[in-house]
Amino acid sequence: MISFDEAQKIVLSHTIKTIPSTIPLLESIGNFYSDTIVADRNYPPFNRAAVDGIAFYWDGTSPIRESYQLAGTVFAGEIWNTEIKDFQCLRIMTGAPVPKQLNVLIRVEDIIAANNQISFKEDLTFSLMQNIAREGEDLTKGTEVLQKGTRIATQHISTLASLGYGFVPSFEFLTATILRTGNEITEPVNKEVASWQIRDSNSYTIRTLLKDYPVSFHVRTAKDTLEALIEQIEEGKKSDLLIVTGGVSAGDADYVPEALVKCGFTCHFHKAKIRPGKPIWFGTHRNGCVAFGLPGNPFSVQVGVKVFIEPFIRASFGNTEKTFCTKTITHERAKKISFDEFIVANENENGIVIKKHNGSGDISALLSSTGMVQHKAEVENLSAGDAVYFYPWIKMD
Amino acid sequence: MISFDEAQKIVLSHTIKTIPSTIPLLESIGNFYSDTIVADRNYPPFNRAAVDGIAFYWDGTSPIRESYQLAGTVFAGEIWNTEIKDFQCLRIMTGAPVPKQLNVLIRVEDIIAANNQISFKEDLTFSLMQNIAREGEDLTKGTEVLQKGTRIATQHISTLASLGYGFVPSFEFLTATILRTGNEITEPVNKEVASWQIRDSNSYTIRTLLKDYPVSFHVRTAKDTLEALIEQIEEGKKSDLLIVTGGVSAGDADYVPEALVKCGFTCHFHKAKIRPGKPIWFGTHRNGCVAFGLPGNPFSVQVGVKVFIEPFIRASFGNTEKTFCTKTITHERAKKISFDEFIVANENENGIVIKKHNGSGDISALLSSTGMVQHKAEVENLSAGDAVYFYPWIKMD
Repeated sequence: MISFDEAQKIVLSHTIKTIPSTIPLLESIGNFYSDTIVADRNYPPFNRAAVDGIAFYWDGTSPIRESYQLAGTVFAGEIWNTEIKDFQCLRIMTGAPVPKQLNVLIRVEDIIAANNQISFKEDLTFSLMQNIAREGEDLTKGTEVLQKGTRIATQHISTLASLGYGFVPSFEFLTATILRTGNEITEPVNKEVASWQIRDSNSYTIRTLLKDYPVSFHVRTAKDTLEALIEQIEEGKKSDLLIVTGGVSAGDADYVPEALVKCGFTCHFHKAKIRPGKPIWFGTHRNGCVAFGLPGNPFSVQVGVKVFIEPFIRASFGNTEKTFCTKTITHERAKKISFDEFIVANENENGIVIKKHNGSGDISALLSSTGMVQHKAEVENLSAGDAVYFYPWIKMD
Repeated sequence: MISFDEAQKIVLSHTIKTIPSTIPLLESIGNFYSDTIVADRNYPPFNRAAVDGIAFYWDGTSPIRESYQLAGTVFAGEIWNTEIKDFQCLRIMTGAPVPKQLNVLIRVEDIIAANNQISFKEDLTFSLMQNIAREGEDLTKGTEVLQKGTRIATQHISTLASLGYGFVPSFEFLTATILRTGNEITEPVNKEVASWQIRDSNSYTIRTLLKDYPVSFHVRTAKDTLEALIEQIEEGKKSDLLIVTGGVSAGDADYVPEALVKCGFTCHFHKAKIRPGKPIWFGTHRNGCVAFGLPGNPFSVQVGVKVFIEPFIRASFGNTEKTFCTKTITHERAKKISFDEFIVANENENGIVIKKHNGSGDISALLSSTGMVQHKAEVENLSAGDAVYFYPWIKMD
């Protein structure tokens, strides 16, 4: 059986071709830059008044005049185009451009005004460019601000707006079909369920874990028969991505691998040394569709998405950043099997606390968890304080 | 001038009335539970086979039989209703219900099948309920799973689906108007800007910071005149929430406080001891609208949203959880002013690193930051290792 590392490598070598596009700014969050983001102007774009004040020219060495004659006022959104003499000053409002020939700005609280003559309170200190944000001190025109392939994050939006990216060079959405299988599966809207029925949670989990990625989802359902599966896979393979849940083991009702091959998919691996999620199936179709078969247990699906599908989608958009971070665990953990193991966990101030749960079918352990931990195959037992890979769930606040 | 703590207390004492509703599961993420979420069935809902295997009855003490007669197979989505004798066994597929009268499940890998007679490999150990997930071991019917007022998080979705919450008891969206003011403001889609123009980033920042909250936004624009502001505020006050950016200081072009009062708003405070964001204005209208006036600098807007508007929205939906966490800082910081100060910061493995930036107008410092730190008014200087409040930006992966 293939190792986790080998499996991931194979998956990442079959990325999908993605198509650059421009997307409205607010809708671009979670997408990826298809081009480098460049400052199209200096920022601030002019010498900007940081306070409401009085501006004048000073050579930096001579004594400051007793008083200056007020020549006018500049509001934000205005430009002062008239000459200003050395004995004159301007009133400038916060955010307005300070004319280039003026280089001192004194706060309105520190001045004394009388008959259009401005003088200053006692013991003031003066320095060149005080209270003025210089043109370009934050960003200079032409600076590469964000790199191609970076994921578009909430904290970028303000800067993108300031630099005129009302539309952002990013990507068209990929299309994905989720095919849920199993005779026992019913929709969550059905309040009345038979004792043997299980409400579908997996299609919701997948869409939630991949929330904000540029992927459109369509959900299909098939019973556990070869014919039903083939019928649905034939439709699903028209998407860029096909994710089948359930029916992927080697049990007698597990027709998914056979159905995928009958529909023209080439299997690149079936089963990998991971727990949970061992029966995972991965293959590609000559039409370009990439298929993942995940075992139907809720936590197996989460692992499959976090360690295979999410990195796969990112890589398809040119992003190879890690989706995990390195953290220390608070308690020891014995190795249970020589596989890469994934365990529901919670991050608190002391580190990562592994949660006790009843296996991959457990639905309640997740509720108060903040992510999952990877116990690598080659690491025997973990001790308190050891570093582990932590995959956080999406945090919203 | 009012302190930060007093200001926040006043804001939180004017929460808006919110209206319970049921929202489709995937659209409910980021909303709040308007009712307690209860398990409507045991989970697992039946004794569930954790593996493909052979099940039989054992009294727990007698020796295991040499072999059992195979009486049939149970697939997922089926129920076995026929009597099973003590010398008989059933083949059970993963996920299928194990009949109540059977209490041992042996993995298919550990059996030997011959002519419908099943025996076991040598040296197997047997225990009651092995490989069977017991009905209700994860959740029992009637358990309160999630409390009213909790924010609906991505890691809840799978459980909500399993418990039949295709529609979630949550809330109707609040309506909010963002009124951006300033003669210098233009839309980010305008690639050609005059040297004195500034592209609006604040309306984008506000919508991004409040992404996934159940609030619908409408954006309006006004020039810096009393008439223009009154016209737009009259429209904006029809929303539950009115957020005005810019024009809120005491400068000569700052008509916002006057315009709000002329439109019937009662001012609860104007200016608070916070940096940046000191000129903040807060008031309410007898029609129920609540108004925030924020200074127009990008970072001031972010502070206003994170420490006033976001907690205000949460409280309106019955959620009083903190929006910050306590972290340690890596470097000392001298107190600059006896206000509550907010500083752009970055979290890494060693703690919180405060970023150097050029003040509240800076747009680039944010890009690589992960949140902001609060330096409380009453805390003189901060030393490396001190605990601070950290307000993270939204994390998406």
